[in-house]
Amino acid sequence: MNMLPTYDDVVDAAGRIAGAANFTPVLTSRTVNEEFGAQVYFKCENMQRMGAFKFRGAYNALSRFSPEQRRAGVVAFSSGNHAQAVALSARLLGMPATIVMPQDAPAAKVAATQGYGGKVIFYDRYTEDREQIGRELAEKHGLTLVPPYDHADVIAGQGTAAKELFEETGPLDAFFVCLGGGGLLSGSALATRALAPNCDLYGVEPEAGNDGQQSFRSGAIVHIDTPKTIADGAQTQHLGKLTFPIIQRDVDDILTVSDDELVQCMRFFAERMKIVVEPTGCLGFAAARKMKESLRGKRVGILVSGGNIDLARFAGLIA
Amino acid sequence: MNMLPTYDDVVDAAGRIAGAANFTPVLTSRTVNEEFGAQVYFKCENMQRMGAFKFRGAYNALSRFSPEQRRAGVVAFSSGNHAQAVALSARLLGMPATIVMPQDAPAAKVAATQGYGGKVIFYDRYTEDREQIGRELAEKHGLTLVPPYDHADVIAGQGTAAKELFEETGPLDAFFVCLGGGGLLSGSALATRALAPNCDLYGVEPEAGNDGQQSFRSGAIVHIDTPKTIADGAQTQHLGKLTFPIIQRDVDDILTVSDDELVQCMRFFAERMKIVVEPTGCLGFAAARKMKESLRGKRVGILVSGGNIDLARFAGLIA
Repeated sequence: MNMLPTYDDVVDAAGRIAGAANFTPVLTSRTVNEEFGAQVYFKCENMQRMGAFKFRGAYNALSRFSPEQRRAGVVAFSSGNHAQAVALSARLLGMPATIVMPQDAPAAKVAATQGYGGKVIFYDRYTEDREQIGRELAEKHGLTLVPPYDHADVIAGQGTAAKELFEETGPLDAFFVCLGGGGLLSGSALATRALAPNCDLYGVEPEAGNDGQQSFRSGAIVHIDTPKTIADGAQTQHLGKLTFPIIQRDVDDILTVSDDELVQCMRFFAERMKIVVEPTGCLGFAAARKMKESLRGKRVGILVSGGNIDLARFAGLIA
Repeated sequence: MNMLPTYDDVVDAAGRIAGAANFTPVLTSRTVNEEFGAQVYFKCENMQRMGAFKFRGAYNALSRFSPEQRRAGVVAFSSGNHAQAVALSARLLGMPATIVMPQDAPAAKVAATQGYGGKVIFYDRYTEDREQIGRELAEKHGLTLVPPYDHADVIAGQGTAAKELFEETGPLDAFFVCLGGGGLLSGSALATRALAPNCDLYGVEPEAGNDGQQSFRSGAIVHIDTPKTIADGAQTQHLGKLTFPIIQRDVDDILTVSDDELVQCMRFFAERMKIVVEPTGCLGFAAARKMKESLRGKRVGILVSGGNIDLARFAGLIA
């Protein structure tokens, strides 16, 4: 049985990433507060270094490498933000990085990964297994594999965003966090149970990829085919051996939203709050909006996970 | 001779707008800091209430109305942010607002103004004079006219953004502020000379509408035809009787940038900083970028004036 990370690990991670990661702003919107009849806080990880929360977990994990591990370098498989996070963290910590990315990954994410000095190896996400490719590269070249979510140091690092939020706002009544493989949600759960124990914590997935909801409700990890959704950061096929038990223990429910609802939120973020949010980053807000009647009079947190999207694609979605 | 507003008026304005206006975030970007070799602070008035700094001046002006003036209401002429700022401020302060707008104003802006409760009166921008219409309405109905920039209370209100910036960052070495009619620049100048007396203060105009630069260099207000530029907030034809002498006294130089340079900055803001900025809001950053070599090692402020742009137009410019 794997040891699950705890809130102490989140606190340690916060110390390790301080100075390297951004302390991201918490934004509010009078329009949203009026629409909800509530006080809503947006933790803006789209303004995190390299544009998403993923930097927190990657930097935390890589900063714990031994000198030998640093010399050989890191390998990661990712459709996007984790790739950039590992590439940037590796550059900052002075080690080589190899990233396994799908052929159809957003061009901006591929370019950014390469821009940070990461070596990119492509695979076909519909026919090949990225985890196996990653493991083979690790064995062959002595690289250390840092998976995108199912890793104690990654989970602890991701939890630092929620820790910052609660330390700024105090305890909240409800908190909405997007869910792919569960790194952010499980890390957020550790921080939530420590800092806002009575807060209702919701994970949010795209409708097309509700493996987390199925797993949560059935009590066992459910695997699905790669879901077709614009939320490319939540196209995971299953929760992890570490993330699932934390989610099962600490999360109140898993909700789903449609791609249309994500686009409406993207437009709202751009038009009214003047921020660029990628589709996955809209999951939390979209779910909160759907149940706003039950949030009346409450203090609500929403984790905006990232803002990495091709400008042309962004333009196409908001136009 | 008109009495020029002073920094004391900016301080008074700050007290008046507190609670009504947003205290906007100051964002930084490691990418920009590396590109400039400097520490650059962006004061984000695109996140101001109704999406632009204009709310500060309008609310300050309207909050000084006498009970009689409030009963009769306010009139303003504007096709853009000032119209919405006056309409929203009037609603918050419980007075009627009449806004004179061109017949061909974008439907979204008309709708936003009406949404704030403003009564819109249309004019034909090719055959009628909006200032005259505004003055006639004011006389006929006893309304108080609040012009978009050449008004002591408007200038003092706009200066509160720079005051907030300096209070957060401390004195800076250089500060870049966009320039249309000069309300924001002259207000910023009052705050700069009080809080960062040695700071180099630059006004920035679109190349196509450099009446401010011509005026600054010739020593007299120069009038031009409505300039063709994407920076629609800087399509003014001349500085004001109040804004010009402050600018002449307190500003170090007026710079210009091209529309192409503005679009590059819009794209950078969206892609790297994840914020939506209207073309006029990019003037300061565009000018700073052009002279970044001379800013090396310095602490630099940039005023991002607003983010009100039709999403379809924004999409077209960044795609």
